[in-house]
Amino acid sequence: MEIREDIIQSHQRILPYIHNTPVFTSHILNTISGAELYFKCENFQKMGAFKMRGATNAILQLAKEQKGKGVVTHSSGNFAQALALAAKNLGIKAYIVMPKNAPEVKKNAVMGYGGLITECEPTLEARESTAKKIASEKGATFVHPFNDFNVVLGNATAGKELLEKHPDLDVIVVPVGGGGLVSGVALSAIAFGNNCKVIGAEPLNVDDAYRSMEANKMMFNKTTDTIADGLKTSLGDITFNIINNHVEKIIRVTEKEIVEAMHLIWERMKIIVEPSSAVALAAVLKSKSAFSNKKVGLMMSGGNVDLSKLPF
Amino acid sequence: MEIREDIIQSHQRILPYIHNTPVFTSHILNTISGAELYFKCENFQKMGAFKMRGATNAILQLAKEQKGKGVVTHSSGNFAQALALAAKNLGIKAYIVMPKNAPEVKKNAVMGYGGLITECEPTLEARESTAKKIASEKGATFVHPFNDFNVVLGNATAGKELLEKHPDLDVIVVPVGGGGLVSGVALSAIAFGNNCKVIGAEPLNVDDAYRSMEANKMMFNKTTDTIADGLKTSLGDITFNIINNHVEKIIRVTEKEIVEAMHLIWERMKIIVEPSSAVALAAVLKSKSAFSNKKVGLMMSGGNVDLSKLPF
Repeated sequence: MEIREDIIQSHQRILPYIHNTPVFTSHILNTISGAELYFKCENFQKMGAFKMRGATNAILQLAKEQKGKGVVTHSSGNFAQALALAAKNLGIKAYIVMPKNAPEVKKNAVMGYGGLITECEPTLEARESTAKKIASEKGATFVHPFNDFNVVLGNATAGKELLEKHPDLDVIVVPVGGGGLVSGVALSAIAFGNNCKVIGAEPLNVDDAYRSMEANKMMFNKTTDTIADGLKTSLGDITFNIINNHVEKIIRVTEKEIVEAMHLIWERMKIIVEPSSAVALAAVLKSKSAFSNKKVGLMMSGGNVDLSKLPF
Repeated sequence: MEIREDIIQSHQRILPYIHNTPVFTSHILNTISGAELYFKCENFQKMGAFKMRGATNAILQLAKEQKGKGVVTHSSGNFAQALALAAKNLGIKAYIVMPKNAPEVKKNAVMGYGGLITECEPTLEARESTAKKIASEKGATFVHPFNDFNVVLGNATAGKELLEKHPDLDVIVVPVGGGGLVSGVALSAIAFGNNCKVIGAEPLNVDDAYRSMEANKMMFNKTTDTIADGLKTSLGDITFNIINNHVEKIIRVTEKEIVEAMHLIWERMKIIVEPSSAVALAAVLKSKSAFSNKKVGLMMSGGNVDLSKLPF
């Protein structure tokens, strides 16, 4: 299977630069959910999120000449930090376009990893045109945060690691934003699972993936009103196609359900996950009968939260 | 060595009822501290604290007839939950004396583990006399939260596990309240360490252990004004004697240093530790030169915090 070989090679490629993160279980959350839960803790990944995998894989696939001129992306979230750190680890330049209203804490994190920030107006158009300008002026290669097959393959390695530890999972539940993680995990489930299904988990307020699957064509979010700040983005064409073909379904959850699930994880498991991660548990708790007595993997996508702005 | 054999037997005894908790490292905290840090994560222990070890060991050492009549203790903290859960696991009764002003969340946790609560006035005298009354009326055996050699031996197993994974630690830093954990770890360091020292970490506001070692006799806390709610207690005679003989020294830290260390652990390591645990890191950061380039174990004693009352 070609995809299996692709994921294996991606994993070997990025292994020196990432953590094989632990898988946690919780007796009490098993009892509450009525299922056997396996939490893949990408909140413990380098820079605090799975994005490190895709960013590293994408950079490592560049030609030597491309590497010499650096990479560029636009992001105000975890991918900005991931690309900056991945580039730093590999000794190349990372130009990061960030909206000028991005939180100082995020700008500082990117700078801390040696990223070269260019600020722009806080619109998608401004972000894209600024990134294009840098790409053409500096010769830097643009790396998309999720709609890039090498990024998806890098993310797929999180699913591979989970299935290597627990090959008999019935299903893996994955938060969906741009779809870079869930599409990677869907490919991993095909390659390494034993009839393992993948289900997406999405905030009701930004349910473009749910609507896209219903309509069988790409739909977009009109608002970004969710606490799960990593999931505001709409799918890209690459991720949509993988999801539409290989993801079982999308479960949508309310903001209240996200906060309750996050509180449960923090209180019972003593780990810090960001709201986006909690969306996966919220989906399981919302559809208990669908997961009853099953072995369920849950992707904890990241742990980068502003501790001074907690919802509880 | 007799003590080594005692700890090994205690470990075998309690193993079915506890987690061998993971040891975490953090590149960034190594950089900040200038030392190699190994965090023993007892915040991931059953019921969220190391106390589960000592409580289980103490109960398992009772005669069959004693077990039939149950155990009793007084505690408003983690030991109340630990004894209740340990007793439940072993199918015996646990009478828990709690001050009537103890937080509802703590009472509920004890009840959730099947503990039989008796409320009393919030004074040490009332707690002790109520526990004595239950012991005499029910025939239940009193188990002290820390000043009991079987409890100390149970706690020592946390040090044993840490040294089994990292036998070449130069020093282990342990938060000090009643001294049950630090005295156990001090015995482990003798039994399993390779010239491994043990240093206590204590809030300046409740520094009875520091003053006791200085005075070479037991001193007591007059106030309990610290955010590290697990460390308010003064030493007992058993723990004092072990500490005075086998603990290198006590480092005292301010409330501000505790909160800063706790924030660092949460933000950088993505794990939830209670303020008492953070005291160990605060001590390392306060005395950097003493730990420079050393391999340092840090006991994260527990992770039970009220998420609605965080100091940041």
